[in-house]
Parts: sequence; C-alpha cells; structure tokens
Amino acid sequence: MRAVTCTDAVLEVTELPDPRPEPGHLLVRVLRCGICGSDLHARHHCDELAEVTAEVGYDGIFRSDQQVVLGHEFCGEVLESGRRGRAPRGAPAAGTRVVAMPLLRRDGAVHPTGLSVHAPGGYAEQMLVEESLALPVPNGLPTDVAALTEPMAVALHAVRRGDVGKNQVAVVIGCGPIGLAVVAMLKATGVRTVVASDLSPGRRALATAVGADVVVDPGETAPFAATPGRGHLATAAEVFDLAVGTVEKLRRLPFVPWWQVWRAAEAVGAATPKHPVIFECVGVPGMLDRVIADAPLFSRVVVVGVCMQPDRIRPVMAINKEVELRFVLGYTPLEFRDTLHLLADGKVNAAPVVTGVVGLEGVEAAFTALGDPDAHAKILVDPARTAGESIDPV
Amino acid sequence: MRAVTCTDAVLEVTELPDPRPEPGHLLVRVLRCGICGSDLHARHHCDELAEVTAEVGYDGIFRSDQQVVLGHEFCGEVLESGRRGRAPRGAPAAGTRVVAMPLLRRDGAVHPTGLSVHAPGGYAEQMLVEESLALPVPNGLPTDVAALTEPMAVALHAVRRGDVGKNQVAVVIGCGPIGLAVVAMLKATGVRTVVASDLSPGRRALATAVGADVVVDPGETAPFAATPGRGHLATAAEVFDLAVGTVEKLRRLPFVPWWQVWRAAEAVGAATPKHPVIFECVGVPGMLDRVIADAPLFSRVVVVGVCMQPDRIRPVMAINKEVELRFVLGYTPLEFRDTLHLLADGKVNAAPVVTGVVGLEGVEAAFTALGDPDAHAKILVDPARTAGESIDPV
Repeated sequence: MRAVTCTDAVLEVTELPDPRPEPGHLLVRVLRCGICGSDLHARHHCDELAEVTAEVGYDGIFRSDQQVVLGHEFCGEVLESGRRGRAPRGAPAAGTRVVAMPLLRRDGAVHPTGLSVHAPGGYAEQMLVEESLALPVPNGLPTDVAALTEPMAVALHAVRRGDVGKNQVAVVIGCGPIGLAVVAMLKATGVRTVVASDLSPGRRALATAVGADVVVDPGETAPFAATPGRGHLATAAEVFDLAVGTVEKLRRLPFVPWWQVWRAAEAVGAATPKHPVIFECVGVPGMLDRVIADAPLFSRVVVVGVCMQPDRIRPVMAINKEVELRFVLGYTPLEFRDTLHLLADGKVNAAPVVTGVVGLEGVEAAFTALGDPDAHAKILVDPARTAGESIDPV
Repeated sequence: MRAVTCTDAVLEVTELPDPRPEPGHLLVRVLRCGICGSDLHARHHCDELAEVTAEVGYDGIFRSDQQVVLGHEFCGEVLESGRRGRAPRGAPAAGTRVVAMPLLRRDGAVHPTGLSVHAPGGYAEQMLVEESLALPVPNGLPTDVAALTEPMAVALHAVRRGDVGKNQVAVVIGCGPIGLAVVAMLKATGVRTVVASDLSPGRRALATAVGADVVVDPGETAPFAATPGRGHLATAAEVFDLAVGTVEKLRRLPFVPWWQVWRAAEAVGAATPKHPVIFECVGVPGMLDRVIADAPLFSRVVVVGVCMQPDRIRPVMAINKEVELRFVLGYTPLEFRDTLHLLADGKVNAAPVVTGVVGLEGVEAAFTALGDPDAHAKILVDPARTAGESIDPV
C-alpha cells in the first residue's frame, strides 16, 4: 500500500507492506484523515515529546530516526477483522464506515495510533484500528465530518472540563482547528456567550462561522475587555464590598452554630460574581503567563494548547487572582462516542473547520499551507485522491 | 504606644503615636499576633510583592524604604469605636475580645492590615480594625487559639477549594504552619486519609499531633507511593482498560440518541479511579514542577505555598497527566467566621501549631528561630510581655 512516512522530519510517499490485522484488530481502508497541529509539531519535535511521555510512563512515541506513519483523525471502511471465529455482537462488519479512538494494542502493550512505529496512522491507504474502540458512523454522516470526530472529541472534553456555568462567559484564546472546535462545542452544549480571539482575520471569520458570539482581534482589543456584561467580572473592590456586606448580615444574627453558617455560606456563594472560563488554545511559551496576567480575578483557564517547551509562569500572580489551571488531554471513550453522535445528530457545527483536501502527494504542501493561519484551518488527506500536490476545496 | 517597625528589612521596637479610629474603625489592644511566613518573606522581598500586586490592581503594599508595622493574625480587645452616634446592633462593645479580617478602609481605599503603611499591623500594643469585619470571640475560646483564626481560615479556604471527595486521599507537601493548618482542617472536615510530607522530623511530629494519618520523609519515601490504597491511583494502563470496557458495553446497545449516552457517561464516570488531592504548602521555585512530575495521573494540586519568584513548569507534563492547579489566596468572610466557630466548638485541633510566645523585643529572635523548621512552627507576639528576647513555651 501507499503511505506518507516521516523520517528525520522528511515526509515522503512510500510503498509499504499492507498491514495485517491480529486478533482484536480491524483492517480499514482509510477514507479521510485529518492533519492535526500535533502532527506538524511531532514532525520536528518528536524526541522531546517522546522523552516527556516516557517520564509519564509510556516509552513508545516515535523518535526522529524512526520511520513513522502519522495521522490519528481518521474515518475508514472496514476491510477485514483479525478475529478468529464468530464476530461478537455489535462488531462492525466489512464494508462498514467506522471511526475509532486512536489506540492500538499489540503484544500486550497499548500504542497511540499515528504517533508510534507500533501503530501506523492514517496518512496511508490502509491502517489497523482496535476493534473494541471502533464505532460505526451513524445517520449517513458525511465522511469529511466523521473524520472530525477525534479533534471534536478533544474539544468536547475540554468544554466539559471547563464546566462553564449558566451565567459564565467563555473566552477562547486562539482560533486554530482546536480553538474553533472548542467554540463549536461550547455553542453545541448551550453556552450563551462565547468570545473568540485570534490575530488572523481568516481565523476570526471561521470562528464566526462555527458560532462565536463575539470575535476579537487581540492586537486591538483585550479579549476580556470585550466580554459582554462586564458586571460578571469581579474586581478586588467588588470582592471587598461583598465581604463587608456578608459579615454585616451575619453579625446581625445571634450566635449560630457553625453548621448553620455553612448553609448561609452556600446561599451567599451563589450570589458571588461569576468569573469567565478561558480556553487557552495557542500553546506557545509565555502564553500561559500572559493569560494569567490578563485574566479577571477567579478565572478558570482550561489549557488546551500544547506548549512543548518548558514555560515560565509567575505563581504569585496566579495566587493573587486565585486562577485555576486545568490541563486537558484527549477525551474519554464516552466523550468520543458522544461527539460522533453530536455530529451525526447535527447538534454541532463543525464542517466550516475543513478548508481543504489533498491526496498523499499533497501532504507536504498541506503541512506548509497550515503554517499560514489565513490560508487554512483543517486539511483532510484522502488517500484515494490523485491530484498531485494541489490542495483542493472540499 | 510601642510597636515593632520594619524599615529596609530592619525590625526594631519603636515608640509610635497611638492610632486614632475613624468612623468604621475599632481601636483594639493587641492581645496576641501570630508571626506569619509571609511576614518573614515580606521583610526582605516586599518590593517584588508590591510590584506583582500593583499589576493585579492594588498599589499599596509597603516598599522596603517605608516604615511598616507587620502582623495580620491578631486577637485584640476593643478599646473604643471611631463611630459617631449610636452603635449598630451586634457591633462589638468596649472590652470585647475580637478577631477580624485584616483589611482596613481608609479614605475610600481598602488596605491589607500589616502589609501596608496605611493599615499598621499587630506587632504593636494597639491597632485599628474594620468594625464591619470584626467578630467577637465566642465560647471562651483561649486568646492563643483565637489568634490562629486567620491562618486556619487560609487552610479552610484551601481545603474547600481542594474539594476532596469521599474516597480521595489528601497529600500535604510541606508541614510549615500553613501545611499543618491544612492537615488539621482536612481532618476537621472529615477527610478520611491525610498523608503529610516534610523533611524535618520536628514538623512531622507536629503533623501527627494535628491529625495526619500517615507522615512521610520525602527524602526516604515518595509521598505518593506512601498513599494507602494504591488502587485509588489511576495508571495509563488502567485508563486504557476502562476505555475498552466502556466502548464494549456501549457497542452492544442499539443506536442511542446522544442525550442517553450522556447519562450513561455519568454512571461510568462515577466508577473512574480516584486521584489524590495534593496541597502544595512549600512555595519555593521548582516545587510545582516536581509535584506535577511526581503526582499520579489526574491529580488536583491546590497551590497554597507562595513562590514569589517566576517559576518554570513543563506544561506538556501537566497536560499528559491532566493535572489541575488551583491557586488559592486568603479566604472569604464566611470562611473566616466558619473557622472561628470551628475553633470555638473544638472541631479543629489547631493548638499544637503554636510552639512559642514572645514580647515585642523578641520578634527579631522569633524571625530567626522560625528559619529552623525543627525549632518552631507558629510563634505568637504578646505585646504586653516583657521578657526581653527570649522565646517562651506557651
């Protein structure tokens, strides 16, 4: 089969042996595979990534001198199962379109598909997926959109971890593919006001297309100043006034046992000014410190952007503002499935994110094009396409 | 009156004019005032602290060349009110023992008591407190313990923000006065298993005295390895098995609309392995990165220790583990009052934290003694005491 391999940061179309499914695997024909920002990063910085991941406990991320097939955002058609004997109930039959969580079990170990030589990815005509993690594409959902299940699941996970309350404003910093996915998921899950910020006019237009209520050029307006209903945002003076008011009220009561005070605290707590929930989707050094410095008091920051280098923060600034940082990675299997169904039910508006499609020969050109935020957001690889290096509209 | 002033990092006993209460203030005679770790720090690094705080929006922290009276953990006796006319209901009368949140309003601005020249602190015979933030000491609570209300409120706030679940283990890193206060509050609020870690044998003994279930010397044992019931801690392999199991179960269902999946997700989520909640109470550069690197997957880290310098973290490590950092500062007025009542009701075992008492002449010696973790934890200033520089047992 033909595949795009990556060795020493060089991408090239290569002839590889067809993958052979073992028990527990499905062999699928790749219909579409998205190019992820982390693929662009891993191409050049896989060694650093491999080291940190090894420290966390997994030692199988590809190294720069290995030949790897990238691609973990795929939709494929089942060709055959590696299973011996009868199919278990619900297992996808040959011909079924599936998406799958990008994890593959081999020789008892689990590997991340598209980021390890043990689990080649979707920039290829064929690939292996874990049968138990594959889900049929329902409702006639178009393949282009089904291939977005993986990045949209990342966004759903981030949004759930963000736990945005009814009267809270969500602020999305950075409208790359994941920032856009977060905007779309925030709207799909009913968040009333979503502010999106990006330096690129093209990306801001896409943010509007996927549902952002307010778009901001951070070069001109601070995203937090643009937040509608400035009254949501607590200032130090507001907090002091609240403190005085609360104690005044409590002081008028006779001596009360402490458990009654706890109850009163809950009631007063409900009236506390609401902070925004910020989704940091840029992931470059210094960004976290800047978000902490600019954010209103008591902000929750969901760190979705992956900054690969060591980074500098001022803890005392985060402490003074009682900022909360929630670092997020991936999604649960339920979130993966929920995402597929949100897409299939038309509940989330993800399609505008896809700005181009290429064949295997076009992958190198697509990587280059993705460096310009005004040119493209998400480019899909269609391994059956024979269009040379051109990037075509969807 | 006599007070200990701090100018250019020099502490000295000085004769100052008696403070005069304005409307809204109470003049109190200081009975006890605790020496806080942040006083030790502010003595030498107030300029950095002032700068960061100014960036957050308050520009009144004292500078090194100013003459300030430190001390924000006080219990005092009301001498007079600055109020004109009749006392409002519940206002503390002369002779009443009070504790108060350390904030003072002056000329319309609010200043932190003991950290600003506009609001001199409790290392003095007399001081001003905000009448609306003062609470009478109930139940005959001893003055030594009442003076712990402020640091214990910091701990209560940290514990509440830590939101430790029923089956979660709490791990306290660093058993200085705040770490010990956190241990005591975790036990007071019903957390089953509290692991405390400190290099100093003296501090570990105090941790046991305030209720820690397990104490650990981090030079010998990693605090997380010592956590009882290792099964609470999720490993990458456990998460994968959970993923496969979940998808297997869901795949056997017919196509279900997405909102039913959400409900199933909640049920499965409840069975997810529990991470520990870690309280970082050291606050030196590099500590945060080390805690992130050592912590089990999905840990929540409550950052209570105040690291004043810029610090380096590896975001990718935090992302890989889905770590959550909650930076905390101070407490709400309700938490301050709850703490007073927890102390007065005998629900929290704070007294062992107090290891010594000094007069005003002994403050310099106390600052020095607090540099040795095996010698002392919390030293109280008793301005009426005339014992020279000696530090006496309580």
